Amino acid sequence: MPTKRTTVRRLPERGAYDRATIDAILDATCIASVGIVEDGTPLVLPMVFARDGDRLLLHGSPGSRLQRVLRGSAEVCVAVTLIDGLVLARSAAHHSVNFRSVLVLGRGVELEGADKQRAFERIVEHAVPGRWADCRQPNAHETKTTQVIAIPLTEASAKLRTGPPKDDEEDYALPHWAGVLPLTQAVGGPVPDPRSHPETELPAYLMRYVERSGGR
Amino acid sequence: MPTKRTTVRRLPERGAYDRATIDAILDATCIASVGIVEDGTPLVLPMVFARDGDRLLLHGSPGSRLQRVLRGSAEVCVAVTLIDGLVLARSAAHHSVNFRSVLVLGRGVELEGADKQRAFERIVEHAVPGRWADCRQPNAHETKTTQVIAIPLTEASAKLRTGPPKDDEEDYALPHWAGVLPLTQAVGGPVPDPRSHPETELPAYLMRYVERSGGR
Repeated sequence: MPTKRTTVRRLPERGAYDRATIDAILDATCIASVGIVEDGTPLVLPMVFARDGDRLLLHGSPGSRLQRVLRGSAEVCVAVTLIDGLVLARSAAHHSVNFRSVLVLGRGVELEGADKQRAFERIVEHAVPGRWADCRQPNAHETKTTQVIAIPLTEASAKLRTGPPKDDEEDYALPHWAGVLPLTQAVGGPVPDPRSHPETELPAYLMRYVERSGGR
Repeated sequence: MPTKRTTVRRLPERGAYDRATIDAILDATCIASVGIVEDGTPLVLPMVFARDGDRLLLHGSPGSRLQRVLRGSAEVCVAVTLIDGLVLARSAAHHSVNFRSVLVLGRGVELEGADKQRAFERIVEHAVPGRWADCRQPNAHETKTTQVIAIPLTEASAKLRTGPPKDDEEDYALPHWAGVLPLTQAVGGPVPDPRSHPETELPAYLMRYVERSGGR
């Protein structure tokens, strides 16, 4: 549900508030920019995240300043941005960017027990589907020294821009090239760990990941 | 110069504070995540930025809540993150991400006059070198209704991870595939505006931009 704080006020036609749109953006990446306030100053830190139904999952070392804030009572902001293209208009002022972004505001809840164990699986599977069954799962020490925080998706909004540039009517006659330079995140060929057994083949779920992402 | 706030405390070997490293990361993209505090809550918003020597440039509509904060006396945070790969370790807990990121803390200064005009050129040229000479430059109305803010690069730090996964010694014998899935931002083939003159050719500076970025 949009609130006053998550309602898109500039260019409101770019705002979207349905969960299908929000979830599709969140599920297209595993990197977020997490905003906290420390001593009155905003700090923005890149973090791995996962969507787990109606909540986002974040994790890290319990001793870090970021994790202390995340498990506290303060509100935090999770921003996810996908850049789809540079929009070149005929006029400098109408240059723009095609993008899809999500803004989530909420307070963290620290996970424990079985919920925490399940969260580890979601975090790995959100990043690379199929990976959880193909790695050593967390032991007791790793589970204890990793904090997992859930942020509910109750206050969230999306913002999107698509399509060609929009110039002032009189500028369409100008001779400058105008259009979009599409940008995508591409997956390159997997690079095996130098310490891998030479006979270790690339598993099918990783082949699918590379193919699905249009890997080169 | 690193301060207490911009010093990398977790995994300090990943921190870097030299301007060459910081500038190279800033110059590799034109999208930042800008953090502000509004009514005590952190907000993170994606923005186009440019580096102009020893400062970052941000711009927008003077009436927006974000721009009001940026021209005020409050500290803001500008975060830039480049994702270079997903790092798949044999153990779930050692999965990681290869990345290059910059964190800048500072207070905005609103630009006026010739400095503001020059900033428009820097913003366009930072995003697409060569573009400024090939578009209509801002008129008096556009200049008046666009705010440009400079943030000095005095309090900034970089953080980087590169290379293969680092597993616990006893896990190297496990049979799971381990290594890196490289991620890059790829430029696709330019999409001309449907309203372009059919005879408008792609200029040389845009061909270079696509080729330099490994466009597909």
